[in-house]
Amino acid sequence: MTGDRAGDYRILHEAALRDYLAGLPDLVALLGAEPVSWSITEVGDGNLNLVFIVKGDRGGVAVKQALPYVRLVGKSWPLPLSRAHYEYLALSKQADLAPGLVPALLHHNETLALTVMELLEPHIIMRKGLVAAAQYPRFAGDITAFMARTLFFTSDLALSAAEKKEGIAAFAGNHALCKITEDLIFTDPYRIAEQNRWTAPYLDGLAASLRDDMDLHVAISRLKLKFMASPEALLHGDLHTGSIMVTDSQTRVIDPEFAFYGPMGFDVGAVLANLLMAYFASAGHERAPGERAAFEGWVLETVEQVWNEFARKFLDLWRAGAAGDAYPASLFAGETGAARLEAERQAYMQRLFADAVGFAAAKTIRRIFGLAHNIDFELIEDPRRRAISEARAVRLARAMMVETGAFPAIADVTGAARKLRDWMPEFVNG
Amino acid sequence: MTGDRAGDYRILHEAALRDYLAGLPDLVALLGAEPVSWSITEVGDGNLNLVFIVKGDRGGVAVKQALPYVRLVGKSWPLPLSRAHYEYLALSKQADLAPGLVPALLHHNETLALTVMELLEPHIIMRKGLVAAAQYPRFAGDITAFMARTLFFTSDLALSAAEKKEGIAAFAGNHALCKITEDLIFTDPYRIAEQNRWTAPYLDGLAASLRDDMDLHVAISRLKLKFMASPEALLHGDLHTGSIMVTDSQTRVIDPEFAFYGPMGFDVGAVLANLLMAYFASAGHERAPGERAAFEGWVLETVEQVWNEFARKFLDLWRAGAAGDAYPASLFAGETGAARLEAERQAYMQRLFADAVGFAAAKTIRRIFGLAHNIDFELIEDPRRRAISEARAVRLARAMMVETGAFPAIADVTGAARKLRDWMPEFVNG
Repeated sequence: MTGDRAGDYRILHEAALRDYLAGLPDLVALLGAEPVSWSITEVGDGNLNLVFIVKGDRGGVAVKQALPYVRLVGKSWPLPLSRAHYEYLALSKQADLAPGLVPALLHHNETLALTVMELLEPHIIMRKGLVAAAQYPRFAGDITAFMARTLFFTSDLALSAAEKKEGIAAFAGNHALCKITEDLIFTDPYRIAEQNRWTAPYLDGLAASLRDDMDLHVAISRLKLKFMASPEALLHGDLHTGSIMVTDSQTRVIDPEFAFYGPMGFDVGAVLANLLMAYFASAGHERAPGERAAFEGWVLETVEQVWNEFARKFLDLWRAGAAGDAYPASLFAGETGAARLEAERQAYMQRLFADAVGFAAAKTIRRIFGLAHNIDFELIEDPRRRAISEARAVRLARAMMVETGAFPAIADVTGAARKLRDWMPEFVNG
Repeated sequence: MTGDRAGDYRILHEAALRDYLAGLPDLVALLGAEPVSWSITEVGDGNLNLVFIVKGDRGGVAVKQALPYVRLVGKSWPLPLSRAHYEYLALSKQADLAPGLVPALLHHNETLALTVMELLEPHIIMRKGLVAAAQYPRFAGDITAFMARTLFFTSDLALSAAEKKEGIAAFAGNHALCKITEDLIFTDPYRIAEQNRWTAPYLDGLAASLRDDMDLHVAISRLKLKFMASPEALLHGDLHTGSIMVTDSQTRVIDPEFAFYGPMGFDVGAVLANLLMAYFASAGHERAPGERAAFEGWVLETVEQVWNEFARKFLDLWRAGAAGDAYPASLFAGETGAARLEAERQAYMQRLFADAVGFAAAKTIRRIFGLAHNIDFELIEDPRRRAISEARAVRLARAMMVETGAFPAIADVTGAARKLRDWMPEFVNG
């Protein structure tokens, strides 16, 4: 499974990939015995890697290969191939902790920075489904199971301090991927940066105000420091709706190449932010008033479920018996001890919720003013309508980041989102 | 300097050590050309290692060798030799960052877990001086320079996130030493543990009340989690007055084998706690009322200086130009930006002060109810007088840990200490 370390890295395009896979008996057995008849299609629509779908007469696989640069930008922005190692490491850990919620690993070659995985079919990227107003009734349950289990079981609540430090060290080398997040999410949207873009001219004023908003700069800097120096658990690190594949009955989390030990609220906030963006984008996609009302209601209900079910599952794991070095049971014996420990668990979750609210805001603002945008907004063709949706999302995000304490519960977030559903930014009348 | 990796570990007692050093030309040049005439004396009075002083006709050196177990307890408590590697690594870093405040490194042999250092003479262990009511006018200035520089320059304020992660990973393997702290400071004093001891029978009631005090258990558990999961900077990790050697004009910090990336307040709190314990112990050492009043005044003044000068120096380094990835200058441009960043620096120090207050309390309680005590109290021969001094220290420590917010400034700590100078615990009248 750990693959071949011999040989040098080379990019495997179609012919070379076919030869490579043909040399792996397990994969040949899975795909069908005639490599020449396999169809190989490059489908990578992400920002960083090559992704191929390979199909034979018996089955199919997905092949992901890291490129030595950022695909979205080109060779001028090099990026270490080692990210494939960290992705493989994270995926293995997630498969252990959250079985059935990540694609099965079939082969990994560290030298080629290449991983072969189960082909997810007929799954689609969740974000595409949300643009089309699809509802995923299994999603909240699945994603909260994924987050609760991967975060809890890699935290100080479940691990000894020694195991935790080993985990932190194992992912410390993935700093180039962390740096992308540090720059693109926590810094660039708040200053002049070549790669920033937004829906001009409508959001020009908002973009400028973000650059002068010192309340926001203090808040984003605190979040950045927390991101850099709070290794609470093994994060997915990029848990947006483009990293989730779904059907009506299944959820699979993919692409954990940004994995590292960081603050839990960053993963939780990513899910909340991307649902909230789908909500605000929805108005821009409707062709007739109210057309997507049921979808929008489901999205906000899902936002609430994501937090509430995550918190419940995380707390249940903690209550079921935490083997980690934090909060040792021996200090909380008896009825009084149990009650105080339960109060402390609630305080822990409240702090984690505040983190998630702040990080959700950061994830929102970067998608509207930074380098990497998302199709939720981008597919709203009329730039004025797009800007209106985006301005609503930013208005909520700014409040969430600067006045985090004004959102003590998830219903405060969804309530504020609902109120902004038809709010009009100044440029509409200006 | 990194020494010989060949050969196996063996304990070097006097004869073997003489032969070993005789094979190192630089050391022979320093000590004098007649190894047979060198005097070699084992002086280790710490808990973990062998320490030899070697003197020849030209000069002397100190030799420290780690044992594969805890010296204080014996072979039943094994401890990895790798701690000598981490000590060497930390000492090298500290020598770079705080030149003149640590002993010069002369030789290191990783396999033997052995380090040869400058002989500090006529320095004495500061704690011994404090028991004798000695005042060290240079101490506050030196220790605050040491802490401000070693903590600032290994933090996210001075390092890139990549450099910081490399540093964290480099010390992650020192978890066995961290575990000693986690158990002996953050857990055992608050529960029944075989190795606990205290001044019985006077403190029996207080020891029992600590085991039932759920406010304290919540507070110590929060501090423990912070210790385990807040890699803010490279800590000394054991910065008590037994790890500091002094003369009237010099200060040297020794023994950083507990070094790891942790919360800055742990080092600062260690210094504050050990001065406060010297203050409370002082009443137990006086032979006539008021005999040590000048010393006690100096100690409390030093407590205030330690915090105030540390904060000033740390802030000055930050203001002078922070090259780290946290709080990027580009987000705090202009006069408004500068003012907000300065307010944020003050908030950062306030949070760090609260951490130091909490950790100081933890360091105090462990010395009175845990395994490792200190001579400040132990040399008070009359157990009743010793218990009175200890009870005063514990009373302050409990307040500092549970009501940390009631100590917003260092003067609140020294003020509370002063009020407890003649306070009498219940057992005196009971």
